[in-house]
Amino acid sequence: MSSLKQVQTPALLLDRACLEANAARMRQRAEQLGVKLRPHMKTAKCDEIARVAHGGVQGPITVATINEAEFFFAQGYQDMLYAVCVVPQKLDRIAAITTQGGRLSVIVDSITAARAVAAHQGPHTVLIEIDCGENRTGIRPDDPALLDIAKALTASPSCTLLGVLTHGGHSYSAQDIPGIVQVAEAERMAAVQAAQILREAELSCEVVSVGSTPTAMHAAHLEGVTEMRPGVYLLGDLFQAGVKSCGSDQIAATVLASVISHRRDSNRLVVDAGGLALSKDRSTAGRPFDSGYGWVLDAKTGLRIGDLQVRSVHQEHGEVTSERPLPWDRLPIGALVRIQPNHICMTAAMYDRYHVIGSDGQVEATWPRTNGW
Amino acid sequence: MSSLKQVQTPALLLDRACLEANAARMRQRAEQLGVKLRPHMKTAKCDEIARVAHGGVQGPITVATINEAEFFFAQGYQDMLYAVCVVPQKLDRIAAITTQGGRLSVIVDSITAARAVAAHQGPHTVLIEIDCGENRTGIRPDDPALLDIAKALTASPSCTLLGVLTHGGHSYSAQDIPGIVQVAEAERMAAVQAAQILREAELSCEVVSVGSTPTAMHAAHLEGVTEMRPGVYLLGDLFQAGVKSCGSDQIAATVLASVISHRRDSNRLVVDAGGLALSKDRSTAGRPFDSGYGWVLDAKTGLRIGDLQVRSVHQEHGEVTSERPLPWDRLPIGALVRIQPNHICMTAAMYDRYHVIGSDGQVEATWPRTNGW
Repeated sequence: MSSLKQVQTPALLLDRACLEANAARMRQRAEQLGVKLRPHMKTAKCDEIARVAHGGVQGPITVATINEAEFFFAQGYQDMLYAVCVVPQKLDRIAAITTQGGRLSVIVDSITAARAVAAHQGPHTVLIEIDCGENRTGIRPDDPALLDIAKALTASPSCTLLGVLTHGGHSYSAQDIPGIVQVAEAERMAAVQAAQILREAELSCEVVSVGSTPTAMHAAHLEGVTEMRPGVYLLGDLFQAGVKSCGSDQIAATVLASVISHRRDSNRLVVDAGGLALSKDRSTAGRPFDSGYGWVLDAKTGLRIGDLQVRSVHQEHGEVTSERPLPWDRLPIGALVRIQPNHICMTAAMYDRYHVIGSDGQVEATWPRTNGW
Repeated sequence: MSSLKQVQTPALLLDRACLEANAARMRQRAEQLGVKLRPHMKTAKCDEIARVAHGGVQGPITVATINEAEFFFAQGYQDMLYAVCVVPQKLDRIAAITTQGGRLSVIVDSITAARAVAAHQGPHTVLIEIDCGENRTGIRPDDPALLDIAKALTASPSCTLLGVLTHGGHSYSAQDIPGIVQVAEAERMAAVQAAQILREAELSCEVVSVGSTPTAMHAAHLEGVTEMRPGVYLLGDLFQAGVKSCGSDQIAATVLASVISHRRDSNRLVVDAGGLALSKDRSTAGRPFDSGYGWVLDAKTGLRIGDLQVRSVHQEHGEVTSERPLPWDRLPIGALVRIQPNHICMTAAMYDRYHVIGSDGQVEATWPRTNGW
């Protein structure tokens, strides 16, 4: 137990009660929707948080890097899905886990990658990535390559074709909740359609996996889907609040920073959280909920201070502005503030641990994160 | 010794010959200008690179975080300057170094911070930060607070007033070399003017410190200045090439990535270097040298492939585009490319090591980096 004052800034704080509530809400959503929850650990990258996501146990998870897979496998996780198209040179590291009995499914979206996986000694469990309109990776469900890929995989003794996966990431561009509901339906439809094509060709498709936090929160139903993979919902951020995946009071992770300079001449104060501590993500730019580089909260209460936001960043400097005169006396040099980030996946990646804040506002634990590849 | 093919992507590569040439060029500049070189380690954060900067020895350095100071002190560096306004809660960690005989000078820009440093048991060596027009932190040289701060510091038995420091960071916004020359002169003038005011008040001002990579490269002269603190010049990036601090062939650090997906339908290919591996820095946006999220180079030769650039990023995906049809056969799934980053300070911060490439294109060493605070 220590107080916030003993934490060296900048630091990543995690409100435990808020995290638990976010986790419970999504577990309930998954139950309502009748799908398995495979939370994406690309945001949290933390064993303790993954356990909270599953209500205290090490359940199935999604990872974005092999490093995450290795980290979680070492902690005891047995059922993982690596949700970025795999390339041949990563198969050895993947098989190092699967040969020890862990499941680390991979995804492919090309015949080239499918053949490489099929030719590898494995064992591999594989999903085919479907593009449901995000236009990032994946093939359209009606692409004839779907069956070619499936056949290349099933022809290999070292491969098991597990199913299909898609990601409705274009939900981030939706303008409102009806827009997100529409993307969620496109996401579901694309995955279910691909699954149907596989099954009609007498190929197995046990898993039909979808997922993004906005679509998970707002999907009308997920008929035909077996699992979903939201991730950022655990911590939340201003972008997610902007697209109504959460309220701004449901953001569990914030950056603790110190006021380091007063510039009364231009109504700015400077904090020691800049482009590294907050990230240079400006995904809220041009949206009605543009939040600069983050909102400034009272360090103790967690409530926003006026309209204060971080308006610009240098590497280790964040410039805080307001439409009104800044509250200089409330925020002297050395004062602590919390900053809600735009995009927590980017921000959290700069830290090697969370300082976990209990209901009394004290730091009750530090939880390690993994980073890198 | 290993080949690039054995490196897991994404990874941070460092061309040793290019680094050494960049380092030698800046040493020569410092010599020409008649000032001491105190390279800023906020970019490289690496012992081996700091040694290259000084031609093989552990010379004076600048740091942006206490973590860097601790890292370099543990490696043997004795003369460091922490160039971000210090706050009271960081003084114990700083004194933990200075009481062991290391010099870790701090900077202040307010009477509040000066009094806190003066009241701390120390020992502390202190510079006063001057704002030369960047308008970030620091006081204007003619601000009466300059003498108040200096007097508060010199009144303390645990403090030594070392001098003044400024940072011409607005050189980044200059439109051309004459514009940078102008900022360099404003930077010099502000520091020299502040030094003069201190000296006229019979206060000591041994150090007159300026620095940014563009102004260090283009300053007409540095009369009255004692040291400069450029940092990014060691590695270089597309922004620095854009403002003519270096050529695009003088960028020493690149990100090695694998092609993970082909999207022929929209003339895009996807690499496994996204917003984390490259950073979300878009400092080249709106400039004539807008480079997206980076230029794509041949992994072996280091030469740019056509006009290929990373046009958009997701967390672990980078989308590469071209005005012409992409060279699909040259870049099959699994192919390696190198990416020159927009802003290497942000990009490098995502990695815990450099893969050092020798003149034969082989990985000849890995050099650790420090990160965090």
